[in-house]
Amino acid sequence: MSKVYLVGAGPGAPDLLTLRAARLLAEADVVFFDALVHPDTVALATNARKIAVGKRAGEVSTDQRFINRALVEAARHHKIVVRLKGGDPMLFGRAQEEIAALQASGISFEVVPGVTAALAASASLGISLTRRGVARNVAFATPSIGDGEAESDWLDTVFDADTAVLYMAKSGQEKIALQLIARGKSPTTPVAIVENASLLDEQRFFTTLGGLAQSALTLSGPALLMIGEVYAVTNEVDVMVAEQQEHPKVHQQSRC
Amino acid sequence: MSKVYLVGAGPGAPDLLTLRAARLLAEADVVFFDALVHPDTVALATNARKIAVGKRAGEVSTDQRFINRALVEAARHHKIVVRLKGGDPMLFGRAQEEIAALQASGISFEVVPGVTAALAASASLGISLTRRGVARNVAFATPSIGDGEAESDWLDTVFDADTAVLYMAKSGQEKIALQLIARGKSPTTPVAIVENASLLDEQRFFTTLGGLAQSALTLSGPALLMIGEVYAVTNEVDVMVAEQQEHPKVHQQSRC
Repeated sequence: MSKVYLVGAGPGAPDLLTLRAARLLAEADVVFFDALVHPDTVALATNARKIAVGKRAGEVSTDQRFINRALVEAARHHKIVVRLKGGDPMLFGRAQEEIAALQASGISFEVVPGVTAALAASASLGISLTRRGVARNVAFATPSIGDGEAESDWLDTVFDADTAVLYMAKSGQEKIALQLIARGKSPTTPVAIVENASLLDEQRFFTTLGGLAQSALTLSGPALLMIGEVYAVTNEVDVMVAEQQEHPKVHQQSRC
Repeated sequence: MSKVYLVGAGPGAPDLLTLRAARLLAEADVVFFDALVHPDTVALATNARKIAVGKRAGEVSTDQRFINRALVEAARHHKIVVRLKGGDPMLFGRAQEEIAALQASGISFEVVPGVTAALAASASLGISLTRRGVARNVAFATPSIGDGEAESDWLDTVFDADTAVLYMAKSGQEKIALQLIARGKSPTTPVAIVENASLLDEQRFFTTLGGLAQSALTLSGPALLMIGEVYAVTNEVDVMVAEQQEHPKVHQQSRC
């Protein structure tokens, strides 16, 4: 009666894990974890064999088929297998391929949702994704994940959404901005970029699509590109955020 | 040195709360909570005065200005004030109005993100919002929240997104389906509806836009309308979900 749990580890800060995920980690016999998951989170699995499967910021450094096979094999020898994935498993997480492999082998599974990075970044910014009177819908997309699919799939969705968040946007910022401007978005459209959302070294930046098209930021950690009028720094709500800016870097602030 | 914490309570199940939220509730002097928040979650605030502010499924039954004033007043008399909101505060939560009120009064605040309902529903369904090869982006929207804003704001965004999730979609399903079909979406577009996501009485239904336009479901709890090809029940990944269906109700399954 073994079971594989696909568990969202949340955006990064260990205390943004859910209570359910913490309990499952404590009970786990084996844990497979992405490189992006915080070591303190992995350490909650006190009784488990811990196996890094090395995904990092959208790059696949362990072959997906190997992970699929390893999960099936682990479930044949252990009762509680946890697959710990950064953020939420069902949003840009390739969970479906792991689920398909488990189902094909007749292995029970359960998915435990997590806090996704866009929500952690919004909390840090103090800016709602759907601010009343400004934005009533939001799109989450990836501009390109190098998997051979059409690169412009995201463009219409991001163009139409009141607020848009691009995941895995560490690189390619100029290209993204230029494509959106060519599609008809105003160069003055406000942009916020959040790197390492929820972690101690989180950084927040404010710019515009036009600004981004001229000079992209050099980022080292996972980054979200957040686009829309809610990120305009023009009113009392955003004054506090603006005052924290250090042209253009917002000072670092602990979230752990 | 008082502080107001705007805290996401998650989708419903008490153990989908974050560790950070649980700690803050335990430390809180006062907690203001929405009606949708689970009683077991509110009960974690063992030392706090607990005040229901009565929001339920998008309906505002306590005046927002009253809540804003109450938060400011509480922060003047107490050190740790928690504003506990269903789901995540920065997505359809009207947090910005509470933040603006706190900032206007010079009161410190911090936002604690939560698991949003769409992710909990996706976990229950076992269907990724962004399944590789089928969907690379997702939009979250509200069809109408009765606040006088244009009712069709959501239409283009939902039309263009590979996957779309409509929050607060308990009513108006026929109208939503008809509008999307009129906009050009195929009547065969698959739809999943999840009511009371993550709770013991969660229910899941599968249909199509055409089916929904002909006969809407009668729902009593908060519901998500999920639209897109990922919800097609036509391949090995979805067979397990299909087998659980009881024409058309999926059997209830505990998540707590």
